[in-house]
Amino acid sequence: MQHFLSVNDVSADGIYAILDTAEALRKKPESLTGQYFAANLFFEPSTRTRMSFHVAERKLGIDPLELEPDLASIVKGESPYDTARTYEAIGADIMVVRHANDHWYDELLGKVSVPLINAGSGKDEHPTQSMLDLLTIYQEFGRFNDLTIVIAGDIKHSRVARSNAHALKKLGATVYFAAPPGLGDASLAVSHLSIDEACEMCDVLMLLRVQHERHTAAVYDTSSYLSGYGLTTERERSMKEHAIIMHPAPVNRGVEMDTRLVECSRSRIFKQMENGVYVRMAIMAKLLNWRGVNHEHFTDKRQAITI
Amino acid sequence: MQHFLSVNDVSADGIYAILDTAEALRKKPESLTGQYFAANLFFEPSTRTRMSFHVAERKLGIDPLELEPDLASIVKGESPYDTARTYEAIGADIMVVRHANDHWYDELLGKVSVPLINAGSGKDEHPTQSMLDLLTIYQEFGRFNDLTIVIAGDIKHSRVARSNAHALKKLGATVYFAAPPGLGDASLAVSHLSIDEACEMCDVLMLLRVQHERHTAAVYDTSSYLSGYGLTTERERSMKEHAIIMHPAPVNRGVEMDTRLVECSRSRIFKQMENGVYVRMAIMAKLLNWRGVNHEHFTDKRQAITI
Amino acid sequence: MQHFLSVNDVSADGIYAILDTAEALRKKPESLTGQYFAANLFFEPSTRTRMSFHVAERKLGIDPLELEPDLASIVKGESPYDTARTYEAIGADIMVVRHANDHWYDELLGKVSVPLINAGSGKDEHPTQSMLDLLTIYQEFGRFNDLTIVIAGDIKHSRVARSNAHALKKLGATVYFAAPPGLGDASLAVSHLSIDEACEMCDVLMLLRVQHERHTAAVYDTSSYLSGYGLTTERERSMKEHAIIMHPAPVNRGVEMDTRLVECSRSRIFKQMENGVYVRMAIMAKLLNWRGVNHEHFTDKRQAITI
Repeated sequence: MQHFLSVNDVSADGIYAILDTAEALRKKPESLTGQYFAANLFFEPSTRTRMSFHVAERKLGIDPLELEPDLASIVKGESPYDTARTYEAIGADIMVVRHANDHWYDELLGKVSVPLINAGSGKDEHPTQSMLDLLTIYQEFGRFNDLTIVIAGDIKHSRVARSNAHALKKLGATVYFAAPPGLGDASLAVSHLSIDEACEMCDVLMLLRVQHERHTAAVYDTSSYLSGYGLTTERERSMKEHAIIMHPAPVNRGVEMDTRLVECSRSRIFKQMENGVYVRMAIMAKLLNWRGVNHEHFTDKRQAITI
Repeated sequence: MQHFLSVNDVSADGIYAILDTAEALRKKPESLTGQYFAANLFFEPSTRTRMSFHVAERKLGIDPLELEPDLASIVKGESPYDTARTYEAIGADIMVVRHANDHWYDELLGKVSVPLINAGSGKDEHPTQSMLDLLTIYQEFGRFNDLTIVIAGDIKHSRVARSNAHALKKLGATVYFAAPPGLGDASLAVSHLSIDEACEMCDVLMLLRVQHERHTAAVYDTSSYLSGYGLTTERERSMKEHAIIMHPAPVNRGVEMDTRLVECSRSRIFKQMENGVYVRMAIMAKLLNWRGVNHEHFTDKRQAITI
Repeated sequence: MQHFLSVNDVSADGIYAILDTAEALRKKPESLTGQYFAANLFFEPSTRTRMSFHVAERKLGIDPLELEPDLASIVKGESPYDTARTYEAIGADIMVVRHANDHWYDELLGKVSVPLINAGSGKDEHPTQSMLDLLTIYQEFGRFNDLTIVIAGDIKHSRVARSNAHALKKLGATVYFAAPPGLGDASLAVSHLSIDEACEMCDVLMLLRVQHERHTAAVYDTSSYLSGYGLTTERERSMKEHAIIMHPAPVNRGVEMDTRLVECSRSRIFKQMENGVYVRMAIMAKLLNWRGVNHEHFTDKRQAITI
């Protein structure tokens, strides 16, 4: 057999030889592979989060299976359920999903046998972003209690503001919001400050991205946003000496903050991106470990990462 | 040399140092790589088959080189021949090709030195799909002779119906078609049944996908297709106790079959997807093995898979 | 923890467990990975060069991180600087960049800590293409001095003609241009010949691609280009016995050269593509080596490639 172009060209014996080999491969995959596969199912486009998961996976020795953004539209007729079941059948050991629906996972839980990671669900949650924010604060201060943390900007449309507020309070921090009029959230037990008060009081200023694509109407023009609600150089000078600045990126330079502050000594923005890889590694390691996955090939690695 | 931005910045000695290193790399690639590359040239889009080949390749330790769907259109001016020769020159050891032409390989055979795998050619063939169907039946019954197998649906536009009919008869099975009016194929020596007769008689019911994208006119509306020619819950109840249901996926839920039957106990649909990985591994292993490729790195693996 | 869907579901202890694991991973990445990552940032589309870098990276054991062509447009609002800093933060050890700007690297030099490779900058430079051309000549003749090399075609819009002319003269070769009227370049100290003179005199004929996409007006119609300025079979017969033909590919068959000559015995076109992988490997190995990167995992490999 030099090529494989048509079943009609293969003899009955040739067909049996392939079937027997396939069965042998199916029955002892460990000896050949020792490999994990992650299905990265980004039904909404994403550069940053996708790349971060990709690197995290490769650093753990996991092979990424990408649902290409343009294929996402091709399979539009297909439900996340059928897509997920397909990737599971093909060999995915874990799934990373971003989807426009707030609760995309409801139709999968209990039906898909592999761990699911939420890489962004509608306007609701982006929990791995939240974890990398927490890691960045933890690295800086070694604690959360007694810290004053202000989340500033478009709270209303932020996937991560509510998760962070909830988690930070649970961990003992004092949390405030600083939102432009109409972009706050009164449903949470969080006090609102002006951006000027916020800068003076905070240990951590978590700026949010103005998400142009999620606003049906452009409520604020970008030039006035900075002076009214963003981090100007004047406001930065009013911050406590040890206070740090965070932003989920990409920054709209000159909107949420003065472009000169993006890489100032207080900024932890690129540190956050770096931390994203490590929290995603930690989450995947824990999910795979706790499920008793036990390929020999990974023994050494997993011993190192189990804490 | 800290960066490589312009040849003008590199001295003559610097150029020779690079050229000599390149020659050294060319002359002993084994010691560095021990690697195979597969060119996955999908000139037509595909999620499922591409992913299945991708996993099969990675499980064999082969590195996939993807022709991105949008690049496929960029290189439209380029013939499959020039594309294939390019990938061969760059280092592909095997090629997996899907193309809209029934005989895309005619211009490559004898001119490209690596094995070719047909991943779907026009309306003509999809032989790896055929092999995974055969594996699924073989796993279930351990044989093909004395089995009654009905292929049901749009025979006329199916890449795989004719290949399967041919292969199954060669292997000793009794094959029937059950097609809606105008979608059968009288050119093959295969008897046609109604879907009701098919369900009662068969050991294996192979449903075909209604391929909306290939029909210039929508001959059948989807709501009447199920009741007239698809697998309803009533028809499923008329099947023999041990009979199984197959479908190449993705299922048009509620068209070819009642949505409740997609994962019923008779269904082997997700099993087929899983089997796709193993038959593709088996075919690639055989093609690479029989051509005497002999990288040290793979010795252990190939000993395991040579049967 | 079976899934990771919401921070709200994770207890304070659970959060600390993830944070501590992430910190442990950050502090000893070597033991887990021993891996390099290359960011392939193609802001302009490319099949050939991208694939060549991809294979070169994989042959060196480097993991490619691709900026997908369609994502390139999504991040259009983002400067190459922010994109590069993001990939650096995520873990890229080296960056391969193609960009429409002639000097895309000016805003990165001194600010990004990893080596940069120019994979094509505007109409200005394509230095790795230049190096593979040099390797092809060097393999053939073992020297550059005493060689007569003609670069023929659209000199004016070629990224590589000027680099090659400059490098070849530096290495001792005699260089001529043979350009259609209006497509030459008088700014370089290179004499112009007719294509007929060029074919008779040269040891190496380097044809350039007619870049339809870069011409705002179609100056030449393709049928007359071949007879007036391209390599016809008549002209090929007038070449010296040992003279070779080169072309960066893809060839516009029947425009720059008669289609029958693409794979004639003088042609080194597919050899050039093969050489592209090796020069890119050599350049990346040198850039990473000279920067003192020293992951254990790569010791053997890098000992082999350090010359």
